[in-house]
Amino acid sequence: MADFDLIVKDGTVVTASDTYAGDIGVRDGRIAALADDLVPARAETVIDASGKLVLPGGIEAHCHIDEPSFGGAVLADDFASGSVAAACGGTTTFIPFANQVPGQSLRQAVDDYHAKARGKSLIDYSFHMIVSDPNEQVLGQELPGLLHDGYTSFKVFMTYDDFCLDDGEILSVLATAKRHDGFVMVHAENDHCIRWLAEQLERAGRTEPASFAIAHGPAVEREATHRAISLAEIVDTPVFIVHVSSAQAMEQIAWAQARGLPVYAETCPQYLFLSADDFKREGWEGAKYLCAPPPRDPENPEQLWRGLKNGTFQLISSDHCPYRMDGPGGRIESAGELHFHKVSPGVPGIELRLPLMFSEGVNKGRLDLNRFVALTATDAAKLYGLYPQKGTIAVGSDADIVLWDPDRRVTVRHAMLHDGADYTPYEDFDLKGWPVLTLSRGEIVWRDGTVHGEPGRGRFLKRGVSSAIRSNAAQST
Amino acid sequence: MADFDLIVKDGTVVTASDTYAGDIGVRDGRIAALADDLVPARAETVIDASGKLVLPGGIEAHCHIDEPSFGGAVLADDFASGSVAAACGGTTTFIPFANQVPGQSLRQAVDDYHAKARGKSLIDYSFHMIVSDPNEQVLGQELPGLLHDGYTSFKVFMTYDDFCLDDGEILSVLATAKRHDGFVMVHAENDHCIRWLAEQLERAGRTEPASFAIAHGPAVEREATHRAISLAEIVDTPVFIVHVSSAQAMEQIAWAQARGLPVYAETCPQYLFLSADDFKREGWEGAKYLCAPPPRDPENPEQLWRGLKNGTFQLISSDHCPYRMDGPGGRIESAGELHFHKVSPGVPGIELRLPLMFSEGVNKGRLDLNRFVALTATDAAKLYGLYPQKGTIAVGSDADIVLWDPDRRVTVRHAMLHDGADYTPYEDFDLKGWPVLTLSRGEIVWRDGTVHGEPGRGRFLKRGVSSAIRSNAAQST
Amino acid sequence: MADFDLIVKDGTVVTASDTYAGDIGVRDGRIAALADDLVPARAETVIDASGKLVLPGGIEAHCHIDEPSFGGAVLADDFASGSVAAACGGTTTFIPFANQVPGQSLRQAVDDYHAKARGKSLIDYSFHMIVSDPNEQVLGQELPGLLHDGYTSFKVFMTYDDFCLDDGEILSVLATAKRHDGFVMVHAENDHCIRWLAEQLERAGRTEPASFAIAHGPAVEREATHRAISLAEIVDTPVFIVHVSSAQAMEQIAWAQARGLPVYAETCPQYLFLSADDFKREGWEGAKYLCAPPPRDPENPEQLWRGLKNGTFQLISSDHCPYRMDGPGGRIESAGELHFHKVSPGVPGIELRLPLMFSEGVNKGRLDLNRFVALTATDAAKLYGLYPQKGTIAVGSDADIVLWDPDRRVTVRHAMLHDGADYTPYEDFDLKGWPVLTLSRGEIVWRDGTVHGEPGRGRFLKRGVSSAIRSNAAQST
Amino acid sequence: MADFDLIVKDGTVVTASDTYAGDIGVRDGRIAALADDLVPARAETVIDASGKLVLPGGIEAHCHIDEPSFGGAVLADDFASGSVAAACGGTTTFIPFANQVPGQSLRQAVDDYHAKARGKSLIDYSFHMIVSDPNEQVLGQELPGLLHDGYTSFKVFMTYDDFCLDDGEILSVLATAKRHDGFVMVHAENDHCIRWLAEQLERAGRTEPASFAIAHGPAVEREATHRAISLAEIVDTPVFIVHVSSAQAMEQIAWAQARGLPVYAETCPQYLFLSADDFKREGWEGAKYLCAPPPRDPENPEQLWRGLKNGTFQLISSDHCPYRMDGPGGRIESAGELHFHKVSPGVPGIELRLPLMFSEGVNKGRLDLNRFVALTATDAAKLYGLYPQKGTIAVGSDADIVLWDPDRRVTVRHAMLHDGADYTPYEDFDLKGWPVLTLSRGEIVWRDGTVHGEPGRGRFLKRGVSSAIRSNAAQST
Repeated sequence: MADFDLIVKDGTVVTASDTYAGDIGVRDGRIAALADDLVPARAETVIDASGKLVLPGGIEAHCHIDEPSFGGAVLADDFASGSVAAACGGTTTFIPFANQVPGQSLRQAVDDYHAKARGKSLIDYSFHMIVSDPNEQVLGQELPGLLHDGYTSFKVFMTYDDFCLDDGEILSVLATAKRHDGFVMVHAENDHCIRWLAEQLERAGRTEPASFAIAHGPAVEREATHRAISLAEIVDTPVFIVHVSSAQAMEQIAWAQARGLPVYAETCPQYLFLSADDFKREGWEGAKYLCAPPPRDPENPEQLWRGLKNGTFQLISSDHCPYRMDGPGGRIESAGELHFHKVSPGVPGIELRLPLMFSEGVNKGRLDLNRFVALTATDAAKLYGLYPQKGTIAVGSDADIVLWDPDRRVTVRHAMLHDGADYTPYEDFDLKGWPVLTLSRGEIVWRDGTVHGEPGRGRFLKRGVSSAIRSNAAQST
Repeated sequence: MADFDLIVKDGTVVTASDTYAGDIGVRDGRIAALADDLVPARAETVIDASGKLVLPGGIEAHCHIDEPSFGGAVLADDFASGSVAAACGGTTTFIPFANQVPGQSLRQAVDDYHAKARGKSLIDYSFHMIVSDPNEQVLGQELPGLLHDGYTSFKVFMTYDDFCLDDGEILSVLATAKRHDGFVMVHAENDHCIRWLAEQLERAGRTEPASFAIAHGPAVEREATHRAISLAEIVDTPVFIVHVSSAQAMEQIAWAQARGLPVYAETCPQYLFLSADDFKREGWEGAKYLCAPPPRDPENPEQLWRGLKNGTFQLISSDHCPYRMDGPGGRIESAGELHFHKVSPGVPGIELRLPLMFSEGVNKGRLDLNRFVALTATDAAKLYGLYPQKGTIAVGSDADIVLWDPDRRVTVRHAMLHDGADYTPYEDFDLKGWPVLTLSRGEIVWRDGTVHGEPGRGRFLKRGVSSAIRSNAAQST
Repeated sequence: MADFDLIVKDGTVVTASDTYAGDIGVRDGRIAALADDLVPARAETVIDASGKLVLPGGIEAHCHIDEPSFGGAVLADDFASGSVAAACGGTTTFIPFANQVPGQSLRQAVDDYHAKARGKSLIDYSFHMIVSDPNEQVLGQELPGLLHDGYTSFKVFMTYDDFCLDDGEILSVLATAKRHDGFVMVHAENDHCIRWLAEQLERAGRTEPASFAIAHGPAVEREATHRAISLAEIVDTPVFIVHVSSAQAMEQIAWAQARGLPVYAETCPQYLFLSADDFKREGWEGAKYLCAPPPRDPENPEQLWRGLKNGTFQLISSDHCPYRMDGPGGRIESAGELHFHKVSPGVPGIELRLPLMFSEGVNKGRLDLNRFVALTATDAAKLYGLYPQKGTIAVGSDADIVLWDPDRRVTVRHAMLHDGADYTPYEDFDLKGWPVLTLSRGEIVWRDGTVHGEPGRGRFLKRGVSSAIRSNAAQST
Repeated sequence: MADFDLIVKDGTVVTASDTYAGDIGVRDGRIAALADDLVPARAETVIDASGKLVLPGGIEAHCHIDEPSFGGAVLADDFASGSVAAACGGTTTFIPFANQVPGQSLRQAVDDYHAKARGKSLIDYSFHMIVSDPNEQVLGQELPGLLHDGYTSFKVFMTYDDFCLDDGEILSVLATAKRHDGFVMVHAENDHCIRWLAEQLERAGRTEPASFAIAHGPAVEREATHRAISLAEIVDTPVFIVHVSSAQAMEQIAWAQARGLPVYAETCPQYLFLSADDFKREGWEGAKYLCAPPPRDPENPEQLWRGLKNGTFQLISSDHCPYRMDGPGGRIESAGELHFHKVSPGVPGIELRLPLMFSEGVNKGRLDLNRFVALTATDAAKLYGLYPQKGTIAVGSDADIVLWDPDRRVTVRHAMLHDGADYTPYEDFDLKGWPVLTLSRGEIVWRDGTVHGEPGRGRFLKRGVSSAIRSNAAQST
């Protein structure tokens, strides 16, 4: 009998801190050995990784899959297509949101998403909850129960009709999280400001996509970010600010961190590679780039890159939110008219997250390889309680591995992607560096342009307590 | 016929920028001449100011007079007692709030306050409005009308049941102010945070006065301050943050000013001379110091002094809010129990504002004389549209003048004060420097311990546009 | 006999804090009265100021007059031409540097400058000393003696061969100043950096004027500014940073002020209206703009304006340093070649300082009138111990007064100016607002395009202790 | 034949990013395999690591060994005792300074230190150079040659008689480093300020140890730190600030990093666990704590811990500088008198660096395990060009490993330590967590209280280019 099911041979292994030449022996879906020279004969399958980087599979910690229509259009990915797109882009775990239908309990929502994922996902997954109705039953019973059951993180919104919590509700939610070791993610935009600005713009007849960037301006995000930080400070518990788009909001986060507050954050590729100028493209073309918060002015990305490098940001996520423009359920039909607040907001990005960050981050010298791994995989695993099962290449971890060709040049076309949308905002981007093979628990799911593995092979991941929570608790005691 | 009604002779005249030896000739209540040597025979009355500082009378821009019960207790000052206390403390103009009774129109409220002041006030006065119900009628009709009629400033609250506006309402109010040249004052504390914290404290049985400082902690004020700044930034109009108590909130204001935003602010003596430790005094004694926002920790004042000196703050106001502890309508009776949120919040201070600031500011070298004048009089006149009629000693200005003995030592006792409260939080303070004579439009209203002049001699002041508004408009064009 | 020698009638009087309609009565060269209506018959001369602003004459606190050749070229102004240019531009007092010739004692230097000024200056003057050789004799005897004799300020250099002091010398100088109430001005550029960068540029053959901006880059100034602040902090005494050119240096000053350190500073018109791009003009044209520190990039001025408005800067000075380009002693001849460090650095500006600041500051809404007066006159008088004799319009002050036409439009041509240079860097600038009449101690020295008064009528001013020193001492005790 | 020379079995392996249960197989001094279950029979030696943490051996990047007398006293450690102390404290690599004797060439200095180390060191070592005489020969020939030969880092001093470089020299040194991929370390204290302050203190007769903290005050360090950063910015190359002691200096470093400058820094245990109050201990007792820069006030450490956690600091080093107090060559004899500047400055600390940081950092929740490894080992290896040979537990790396008992409680006594000093500043500290076994290239050098291995078994390490240099180069291209 072979010692290993599979050996990844002669690659350059990269973790969030280390880079070294080594072979990987996989057994029962997990990494059983890392060694200088594993004899090929010891495994059934040997993968030649020479000339390749061997990276932990990406963890996509912010994406929207098969959620109910938001703003009208239909999300273009279910767990099948979404997980395939992820795998093809080098991502081996994703954590979509389990989004309650109004009236539903959190538990029902989670159950629904289990049903949606079951039989479909190619890769492993877990769910963040969304808490949109923090009543006594939810905070006293459901949420604690679910946190204890391994759904250890959840998001709250400071905007959006059906989701928006007021500050008192957020405080209660944070206090519940503190009591039960939950990790709270916040969508930080000031709802009142958005509404008020939108109304001004509408009155002025300025309904074109470019108005979106005004209604959701940097001060709108910065204010809510400062507020979210303050609420968490009052409760004395960590907080994670999702999809930070502006240097102004980032400045607040860095300010809080310098004061010693346990504030964490992510940004997204759309804020590094797109700008509000894209909204000004002709007609519906501009609508392709709409997402909330919006990309900012062209000087903004340089400062966000600085935050990715120096640790103000812990994660880079896609906030994958795929819509079709055309056809039934598409943005055009559902919006009815080209109006900045009628078009469902969101951009697809789950498949290109790693290639974009590698090409523009690693290959342009903005990030080193280890930081790339930390931002795309390891720190997500730690912050969301998946570590050490996921997020690294270490003995005992799941063999979720990507072989990366650092030199392969690819010109992005939507046609080559696997998500359900009918466009990509990164069309025609010239990238250098591409995932050539993806292993999920030791099984090949993507190799040289071909998807392998059955839908439904992906497993649900019960998660542990966030490292942010542990760290805060350790320091407090 | 004499050239002047009155001459102030041989004093040291002080303005917000100048200090010089000179005589003042007053005619028809106004300053007609400043000169090196006015012949005494030219006036009916000559006041010997030798050895004295001759200052512009103070302008009290934040005080509560004869307002409806707030939290149960009855305000202890009407326009008679309040104006006398002001005059005895060297203040010659005050601007209380015209506070709507729910259901009332703004215009009615203003009319009511005119009735309350008429026949009573010893010194000149104007009103800030309070906008607590910004409905269409108010924003579209009433407020513009009143702004145009000379009520050019108004306050909004980010907390308190009957007053609290949400962010959308504040934006609308700011936009109305921008359109009609109004100057907006903001009470910046986060209402949700106060409620939530208060509830936690109550549940824990911690109802003592000291809990007030926790429920209204620095982060609660800092958050609302950042938010108020952001809302004004979005509307692109000036904003004034009232009664800033914490260095944390001040830091936000300085941050905004350094970014070039037209943000203005005041602090109050209670934040310089009291601390949250005072709340811990035995029993009801601690309740005497309750006010919102509360005094902070003992290290806080040093930073506020820095802000007074370097211009982060433009004004020092008393936020005079006088209650009796004992008797009917007193805090003890109205609260029913010693509970941090049942005791009506507020401290008296209109009479001691100038003496406290002179003694601890000027005489301790923290502020120079001209800055003292700017903070207590001139900048209030400018920011609230009373300049040049009020706030300075200049040709053509009203002869609102205080003779100040810079060396007189006084130990504060409530018994010597003239307000309607039955205590002062500054009891037993040893001060150096005291107002010995106060002129209101050339008439003596306070001299050597005696009040002069009839109640009702004070006149209503129709105000012009704030210098903050003018400056912002000039820069924008 | 008339009560007054002269009356300025019907103007709008402006001080650093006040603006009012009033007449001014002048007697014996001083302001004897300010009044609402001075009867014309009471004076021998009446000046009609209707429609004009009546401002304190400017104080030019940083200028170079009749100094020895610096870098080869000959300064184009002596006290005659320099004082005329000043008066024509609305300036009534100037404080050039008394610059020691190497080997000379400070006292001799001062005596020399007295000789240079005597019989020549049209307006009043004083001298700042320059301390370039802080030996025991200088620090122990000469400097204290001169400080006590009314030369209460002096400058030290952190660069330039013959002037550069090392940090230890600066500490000793600061300590001497502290002991004897002297106010220290610092030219803050890092000498080593300038030399090192210049050498690199020369080696690379990059000797064109544009290299000047690189050799004197923003980090070079910022570093020395932080250092000067630190040295003063160590000695615990105030410091004044002269001619701040970059937002980076300004940021350090604001940082220090926010920490409560007594740090003061000025900027100059060349940093508001010129940029390093001007150095790139064709051939010798670019050399016209050379000065140290240099103007910066085009985004820089906006931040400096903010510092002028919010009080980071107390003064605006010209650093007038006039050279001729052509002819004997001109920059071209003396440099020998067009080399960034062979051309004598400095730009003329004493006559246009007020017109530039009024036109672009007051008339564009960046500064209000009172701030304009504070920056150009009052705060210079206070910081340099001339107050209240100079710098304001107040009873007892010298009648140094400018009548300003706020609406007059002038296109700048060097031909209309009165200094000895043969160009102005502001050629063709269109300005709005112009001084139409200048009074020095009640005598007309400039009126409607004509200079009046005899050379030599200007008097030397013995100065008192700086307000910065007084304020620091008051706070320390 | 066995597969491995040694197996470390059943421990918890920790790297700068990962923590996992695993066995380590060592062959030929290097880590050949990491696996879930290595069969004991496959190795000659098996070490039971159950219940232990298995950490990369510490790298001591800042220590003074067998250097010439500095200030009179004789350094108490040669490479024998120093390396033993290091190993017993869990450190497996150290990088002392090769310190030129005046007149010596850099090459000679390096050769001397090779001779000093040869035959003595128990563990591997390398040398930082010190550049104290940057003449043309040194910068043009020697330094480039040595940088290319694997001495890839060197230190310059901004203070100390024989070492102090002026800013121009530092610029030249930085430029040479940039050209030849050298990494520059800076001792940042302002020499002039120290001398000047010391002279004032001496004149005042204040020669006690406590004066040391005044002569080397926080502003002295902060100024030099800002200056070092500015010099590196001008040259556009990375810089490393050694032994940062004050929050004020740290603030400058964080400021630079936020601006995107490649500035790196370390702090030391003496700044976390001692304070300037220790200098006030009775008589010579106070002198035991003298080091430059000095420990600061008791509030300072909290801020430094924040910098260690959030990445402002990359390293924690000991700056081990061991002196004996008593006997010949001791501090007392060599100083002659108890005078703050006659006592040789420096504290021992090489052996307690890791135990102190583990006990107070990891066990008190201030740092997580991975950050501890990064600060004590991995980032030193990267910044100083030893990675991946040293600094981590990864396939191919040297088997420099420490078994750490996280729960062992130890009360520190100097008697248990192995350095040559006769005291420790940490006497009587109660620590939790202790190194129980140290492997150097797979050989046991410290186990359960006993030193193993022959002096001289340690090897010299030729180093590669710093990661800081690589990262800066990547970003620039």
